[in-house]
Amino acid sequence: MPKIVDHDERRAHIVEAVTQIIIRDGFDRVTMREIAAEAGYAHGAIARYFPDKQALLTAAFLQVFNSSHDRTLQEIEGVRGLDALRRMSRVLLPYSDVGINKSRIVLSFWDRAAQDQGLWEIHHENIMRRRQFIRRFLTEAMEDGELAAHVNIEVAVEEVSARNAGWQMLAVLVPEAATNAKLDASLDALIRSFRAPIPESL
Amino acid sequence: MPKIVDHDERRAHIVEAVTQIIIRDGFDRVTMREIAAEAGYAHGAIARYFPDKQALLTAAFLQVFNSSHDRTLQEIEGVRGLDALRRMSRVLLPYSDVGINKSRIVLSFWDRAAQDQGLWEIHHENIMRRRQFIRRFLTEAMEDGELAAHVNIEVAVEEVSARNAGWQMLAVLVPEAATNAKLDASLDALIRSFRAPIPESL
Repeated sequence: MPKIVDHDERRAHIVEAVTQIIIRDGFDRVTMREIAAEAGYAHGAIARYFPDKQALLTAAFLQVFNSSHDRTLQEIEGVRGLDALRRMSRVLLPYSDVGINKSRIVLSFWDRAAQDQGLWEIHHENIMRRRQFIRRFLTEAMEDGELAAHVNIEVAVEEVSARNAGWQMLAVLVPEAATNAKLDASLDALIRSFRAPIPESL
Repeated sequence: MPKIVDHDERRAHIVEAVTQIIIRDGFDRVTMREIAAEAGYAHGAIARYFPDKQALLTAAFLQVFNSSHDRTLQEIEGVRGLDALRRMSRVLLPYSDVGINKSRIVLSFWDRAAQDQGLWEIHHENIMRRRQFIRRFLTEAMEDGELAAHVNIEVAVEEVSARNAGWQMLAVLVPEAATNAKLDASLDALIRSFRAPIPESL
């Protein structure tokens, strides 16, 4: 009886190996040989699933992105408005070591996406999906009366995007600025800047 | 009489050529041959000034960083507090095409700095210099009574850093989010979030 190969599992295993190498050595040093050694597969087994380095970087990036997306969906279930925005931000901000490692993948992807149309489009589509969430939560906050009157939702969407992106860089390159306590304080400041003041009559 | 060579000028000319290639093709495609062609020098003339690609990327990054630093110094002369913070942010945010091109250099540098201790330290030192400015302006704003009571200066320093960094990514990878008008609106929102409310009695 032929051995049954679970291709999805193999793909996932290879992506995990690539992720580890990018975190450890950087994307420039990723080679098919090194991936094969890390994954414990023959060289040919890697090429069967991923034709080139770019396909591997894309897979690593999508793995990071999709796992954040899935965790966001779990976290916001039954929650809306600024509370949902806070929960999503807690998933996306680079808390603890896991977040820092993810940020390394993200930084590698940004640089390549700046030069490659295919990667650019994958990144762009993902960012648009994420912005749609931010916009929805801010709109809910407005509907529920928790958004301060001066907040412009479209401006706020860019603000949240820019901050989330910037923290990825800080986590990797200025780690003392991106401790869990500082991320908490920054998130509090952000939500505060959006929240309507509590009326004094209450 | 031997020809007098202005070495500083040659270095600057080579850095400018490298900058153009990174913007156009990405750092991965920078070769000594291409730089020589772009600069109009012989191959050996490049190697005399910059031993390797990393030295060239560092020079391009420092050129971007130092020109921003010099412009910041000009802009803040005789100005303090939130006005100085606004002027500095206007220099650093990726306004118009010039800013987007600078952001491409910055994105390339971040990725390499994540993997190389020497580049990491250069970046870290520059970021620290910039944060020192932000801290100074916020402290002046506090002294002058223009800072809102709830603003924690150390948290605000990270907030401004994260935002400035994030906009570099958006300028390159989500350009429709980083129009001049959106940058203006975001900067207004930031300054507003720091500013003490105007007393009603005035």
